[in-house]
Amino acid sequence: MLEGFGKTVLDPAEARAQRFAIEEFHVEYCAALDEGRIADWPLFFTEDAIYRITGRENADAGLPVGLVYCEGQGMLRDRALAIAKTEMFAPRYLLHYVTNVRVLGIADGIVSAQANYLVLQTLVDEKTTIHQAGCYFDRFARVGGGLLLCERHCVYDTLLIDNSLVMPV
Amino acid sequence: MLEGFGKTVLDPAEARAQRFAIEEFHVEYCAALDEGRIADWPLFFTEDAIYRITGRENADAGLPVGLVYCEGQGMLRDRALAIAKTEMFAPRYLLHYVTNVRVLGIADGIVSAQANYLVLQTLVDEKTTIHQAGCYFDRFARVGGGLLLCERHCVYDTLLIDNSLVMPV
Amino acid sequence: MLEGFGKTVLDPAEARAQRFAIEEFHVEYCAALDEGRIADWPLFFTEDAIYRITGRENADAGLPVGLVYCEGQGMLRDRALAIAKTEMFAPRYLLHYVTNVRVLGIADGIVSAQANYLVLQTLVDEKTTIHQAGCYFDRFARVGGGLLLCERHCVYDTLLIDNSLVMPV
Repeated sequence: MLEGFGKTVLDPAEARAQRFAIEEFHVEYCAALDEGRIADWPLFFTEDAIYRITGRENADAGLPVGLVYCEGQGMLRDRALAIAKTEMFAPRYLLHYVTNVRVLGIADGIVSAQANYLVLQTLVDEKTTIHQAGCYFDRFARVGGGLLLCERHCVYDTLLIDNSLVMPV
Repeated sequence: MLEGFGKTVLDPAEARAQRFAIEEFHVEYCAALDEGRIADWPLFFTEDAIYRITGRENADAGLPVGLVYCEGQGMLRDRALAIAKTEMFAPRYLLHYVTNVRVLGIADGIVSAQANYLVLQTLVDEKTTIHQAGCYFDRFARVGGGLLLCERHCVYDTLLIDNSLVMPV
Repeated sequence: MLEGFGKTVLDPAEARAQRFAIEEFHVEYCAALDEGRIADWPLFFTEDAIYRITGRENADAGLPVGLVYCEGQGMLRDRALAIAKTEMFAPRYLLHYVTNVRVLGIADGIVSAQANYLVLQTLVDEKTTIHQAGCYFDRFARVGGGLLLCERHCVYDTLLIDNSLVMPV
């Protein structure tokens, strides 16, 4: 559990409806990353969103920063652009599996939720391996008809990440 | 398939409603284990519940017992307490991924279902590995507004479990 | 993304209803394979269905054929029979995990969708390993009350498959 992401009492029907919408959000988000559409990645976030990747040890200790920290569309787009332009890393395929979506609370129109993610990686001529396993802690805002992330904290268990983390999760 | 857990003909709308409720049960159950809230684990079971972890070979052969066998709240609470107090094993992080929830039948208010589970384990300074992969075979009772397990059979494929199985699945 | 499987604009409620039905299809399909009910496998397909397993590199290059290609019930049943009769390969357990079901489009009663799959394999006295990770690209027809596959393209990331691919995915 991440600080600030405790579970509150929820109306079951409302929580379920939110769960379905969040599941559909994850699927679109992951499809963008799995297909390498990195330029689309910032579009899943609000203008002043926070995006963070951090280890479970850090998260448990309440340490704010981590491996990656972005605040706002400018930083998200910079990061996406850097990845798209650099490609210094070996070509690889990624697949995201998101399960266990858990709605934690709804307050002022913002839905808090968590989910377990598993990112598998395949490098050319190598076996498919576990790249990163962890838990998303998210806050979603409803904008237009859909959801956007105003916060995403990716808390990974995988302390040994098998090469420099270049792609967002 | 586990003996006694065959699929029966079901009303599709009823089966779907049960599936959603079961998915939400799994998510809460797994969150408790992933967060190390071991004392909460017995709360997911009825008073006289059966909990068992057994290998697929054993299950296929119709052998009743396995690696772990608990009958009733007393044994479940004993086990939870033993784990909470001992901690002789190395610190580790666990993540549960539950997919493929399949409602098998509904009889006398008890819902039978299966689901595939994957438990990933991360030890300090090691890679994330597959700790246990298997199938839950469950019977749920509706108590108050929610579901409780009156039976859970964890049938694992992973015959070589990488160290003594201490945590419930 | 597979050519011909782009995402179109969909009514959200209709897409969600289709998603639920497709999730239930996957669960039944995977249960048949996980339980070794190989003779049931062709029953998930229409009379003239296409079934293909191919690598992501091939799929990205638009190459039509792959590791496995079946067209029509005859070829599907031949393949199922060959597997059931041969058993030249070592005994193994398989578990399928399907997540991230994404409805892509609905046209003329045919629903196009994708989903991420993970197949874990356990050989006797060995650890559970990732057998194949990939993405299903499917077209479903509604026949009777249920869904049948008229096309399934299994696009795998796992380029090194750890032994000859005998089982369908």
